Amino acid sequence: MARSCTLLLSHKFQNSFVPSLCISKASPAFPMRTSTPFPSRFLTHTCFKSKSTTLSVSAAGTSFTWDDVLRISQPESLPDDPSDISGFFQKVKICNRGSEMQSEFLPFVIEDQIVGYLHNGFAQHLRRFKDVFIFPRDDSYGGRIGAHVTLHPMLGKPEDRTGAVGDVVKCLGEELIPGIRNELYPVTSSFGSRVFFSLERAAAPYFGIKAYGVHMNGYVERDRQKLLWIGKRSQGKATFPGMLDHLVAGGLPHGISCAENLVKECEEEAGIPRSIANEAIPVGAVSYMDIDGYRYKRDVLLCYDLKLPESFRPENQDGEVDSFKLIPARHVANVIRRTQFFKPNCSLVIIDFLFRHGYMKPEHFGYLDLLQSLRSGDCS
Amino acid sequence: MARSCTLLLSHKFQNSFVPSLCISKASPAFPMRTSTPFPSRFLTHTCFKSKSTTLSVSAAGTSFTWDDVLRISQPESLPDDPSDISGFFQKVKICNRGSEMQSEFLPFVIEDQIVGYLHNGFAQHLRRFKDVFIFPRDDSYGGRIGAHVTLHPMLGKPEDRTGAVGDVVKCLGEELIPGIRNELYPVTSSFGSRVFFSLERAAAPYFGIKAYGVHMNGYVERDRQKLLWIGKRSQGKATFPGMLDHLVAGGLPHGISCAENLVKECEEEAGIPRSIANEAIPVGAVSYMDIDGYRYKRDVLLCYDLKLPESFRPENQDGEVDSFKLIPARHVANVIRRTQFFKPNCSLVIIDFLFRHGYMKPEHFGYLDLLQSLRSGDCS
Repeated sequence: MARSCTLLLSHKFQNSFVPSLCISKASPAFPMRTSTPFPSRFLTHTCFKSKSTTLSVSAAGTSFTWDDVLRISQPESLPDDPSDISGFFQKVKICNRGSEMQSEFLPFVIEDQIVGYLHNGFAQHLRRFKDVFIFPRDDSYGGRIGAHVTLHPMLGKPEDRTGAVGDVVKCLGEELIPGIRNELYPVTSSFGSRVFFSLERAAAPYFGIKAYGVHMNGYVERDRQKLLWIGKRSQGKATFPGMLDHLVAGGLPHGISCAENLVKECEEEAGIPRSIANEAIPVGAVSYMDIDGYRYKRDVLLCYDLKLPESFRPENQDGEVDSFKLIPARHVANVIRRTQFFKPNCSLVIIDFLFRHGYMKPEHFGYLDLLQSLRSGDCS
Repeated sequence: MARSCTLLLSHKFQNSFVPSLCISKASPAFPMRTSTPFPSRFLTHTCFKSKSTTLSVSAAGTSFTWDDVLRISQPESLPDDPSDISGFFQKVKICNRGSEMQSEFLPFVIEDQIVGYLHNGFAQHLRRFKDVFIFPRDDSYGGRIGAHVTLHPMLGKPEDRTGAVGDVVKCLGEELIPGIRNELYPVTSSFGSRVFFSLERAAAPYFGIKAYGVHMNGYVERDRQKLLWIGKRSQGKATFPGMLDHLVAGGLPHGISCAENLVKECEEEAGIPRSIANEAIPVGAVSYMDIDGYRYKRDVLLCYDLKLPESFRPENQDGEVDSFKLIPARHVANVIRRTQFFKPNCSLVIIDFLFRHGYMKPEHFGYLDLLQSLRSGDCS
């Protein structure tokens, strides 16, 4: 099904993120918003702290080194209160922007089930592909624009849908959907349920489909303390170059199980052999919803823990990680609280680790709110 | 502030729960409902399984012994599929009944914040205490009855509110609010925030206030397997006599921290000395909302793990536990999936443990739904 590609694309996107080191009272890179999915008492708390005592190290401008990371991780390097968890809330907020823009999106419906959301402006680009997309004037799926988007009824089979939508994505081109990876994600209404078709990974946020990934914290136990293996992303990475990461992560493409995908990513990202990777245990999930222009990210990260032998040294195989360091978990907590060095969604995965391993305490103000905020997106 | 107690109370309550052993295809003790807080795909799945392959052992009728527990815990004792997690869903449902009755409740508002919910029928009993409760015709707090309940403006101080509401609770008597314990729970809008007054524990569900508790799984690690200490409640307990429990649990009364309360409960319930109890780590929380007649339980259970030395033997000090057994976690999982032997909310705490320790797998159908369902109540 070939389609002509003669659209004039005027909408520009900004995906780049350049790390830097600067200390500011309230980070200008991620200003506080007044409309978020979090309870107002948390906002009040965070804003109050931002105006008064909380220091935040921003990662926008220039690069930072391991020396910077290790210095700022030390308890005594900043005179802040370790029970102040507002720095964690801020990291959750960075992953959950734009909820006030939800009304600008149309539900994307397949066989009566909502599988995604498309921005009204993005949807305009799809209207000319009349043999692929149709726009019934029916708001019974909750869209506030009074319509929804679905596929042409002639596209009844998954492979037909995959081909037709894939052709449109190619037609729209890099200017509208940058970073095509030729990797297909399943389009479903919920995890493990029927796959209606498959969609190019880079297009997932433009169609607002849920994207699942496997994310693993690798740790070592020494003298009853836990130490986390932290990676620093290559400067050459297209997304979040030079930023910090937990040990292993990867999107979950169509047709591979979580367990098998994790073993593959363990090998590629950290040189962990299958015999050790098989010891990783699933421990739950975090989720977020982030609206940025036409993009509606609905990500669910399936979390894993792997306890590694003290003698193990991770070695990156695919050029995506520059280097690794083993850092006490409570020091990693300081890096997350105090800086924006971590790739944002990795912060959620590590905060989840900190909760499960006793590094967060109910006595810390905001404990339950922070716990809940780790699943701010539709986690299904 | 003395008040006359001349009410005729006609509403009867049933709190008793007598365990038994019987095997049935769908448990008549806890019939499936069509209206719940869970996604419909889960309901469909559960109902399908109930009609076909899942066996369920009910605990309503007569008592069961440790021999019954140990037998049913064995993988081979029932020919079911270990990846079928519908038995866990059923246990979550038992804790989360009656969401379709929410519209019968009035918001209970203090200083413009919702702190609880009262059944319209229960509220009728409070209307004659005009110097304590008032009923503004104002539905701005979301009540569907077109009004809310608040305290008389003369009751401005926490101690005045505690005294006045306490007097009313005593007046209403055991017939309306059975099981008075003379233990005060804080009335707040969220965990750790301002306490508006304190309320008798037994009255908490009748006022729909959130009740917090500390719940601890005690475990032993042997050959890389985890074994859980399981308690069997005394036959003399007023609630859930003879049923199974995790190692330590207790409500969180006003004026004591979670950590301190846990140490106290560890000592009372399992004879765990402070030196060991201090090693317990907070690991998150589960929550549920359960409507039963006039009672609206909104419970948040703060979860803890304690890794115990293999040599440790728990010993109950307060007569509330009959005996303990150390059972492999994966066998405990079978008991939860297959029976209703556990006190219902303890199932949630153990399912949370099973998630965090890798006994649940993303490959099991319903993994994310079950994970989310563990916080079906307002967990804040």
